[in-house]
Amino acid sequence: MANKQSATSTWKGTLKEGSGEINLPKANVTTGYDFGSRFETGSTTNPEELLAGAVSSCFSMYLSALLSNETIGSINSIQTTAQVQLDASVSPPKVTTVELNVTADVTQLENTKFQELVQQTENECPVANLFQGASISTTAALLTPNA
Amino acid sequence: MANKQSATSTWKGTLKEGSGEINLPKANVTTGYDFGSRFETGSTTNPEELLAGAVSSCFSMYLSALLSNETIGSINSIQTTAQVQLDASVSPPKVTTVELNVTADVTQLENTKFQELVQQTENECPVANLFQGASISTTAALLTPNA
Repeated sequence: MANKQSATSTWKGTLKEGSGEINLPKANVTTGYDFGSRFETGSTTNPEELLAGAVSSCFSMYLSALLSNETIGSINSIQTTAQVQLDASVSPPKVTTVELNVTADVTQLENTKFQELVQQTENECPVANLFQGASISTTAALLTPNA
Repeated sequence: MANKQSATSTWKGTLKEGSGEINLPKANVTTGYDFGSRFETGSTTNPEELLAGAVSSCFSMYLSALLSNETIGSINSIQTTAQVQLDASVSPPKVTTVELNVTADVTQLENTKFQELVQQTENECPVANLFQGASISTTAALLTPNA
């Protein structure tokens, strides 16, 4: 089973004076980006925000998959925030750190088991695995542990 | 110069019956995703589409940055389509290939130089660099070569 996903981005002009547009067809989203939004205080999106979206969405879904195989109560919600850092002081620039913060509302689950599954997700989630050249760290909280 | 970008994804329910929501704050986008959209023929987004958006947007911008340092005509547009493939037949699933297709409308540029800068972009663009465990390939066309 393999799936292939596609997206298109168009840049017009020079690096600092130009701007770009990112099209995500299945998300039905076309959104602008530019130098300011990536390296300064601009308010539009940028490649690292999309990476944060990719890794956070993969992480929450993968953890749900692992929990779906356990005898527990209900998976009310798994929320993952990803922070992706690009270091542009080196040449070429490099993604150096990914910080993941997970909060789960899952019933009848022990915290020890939860933390074990979070670690397994960090090891196995295919998007997190792309960040092997970076430092990846995860903190996780189970809201109502059955410990 | 370092920049940190953040996104949050929330999954509710089991893998196959549940669904998730991805929030990209700077893109001002909240979009749904689920098992069907990732592994079957569903029509919503998924982590790999966001990866395709991240690598295509980084690629177009990086190539513009390299072209901005050259003595050429104008950078009318650089369009990059990325296709990201997830192989879910292995356990854990793995991102196996990234195919990039670039079309540039840039004046007073020789095709040889263009292809050289495309290769440099594949080597240096920080998002493309995350895919080192996968097979990455790029085809590139210069619309109006000054050869």
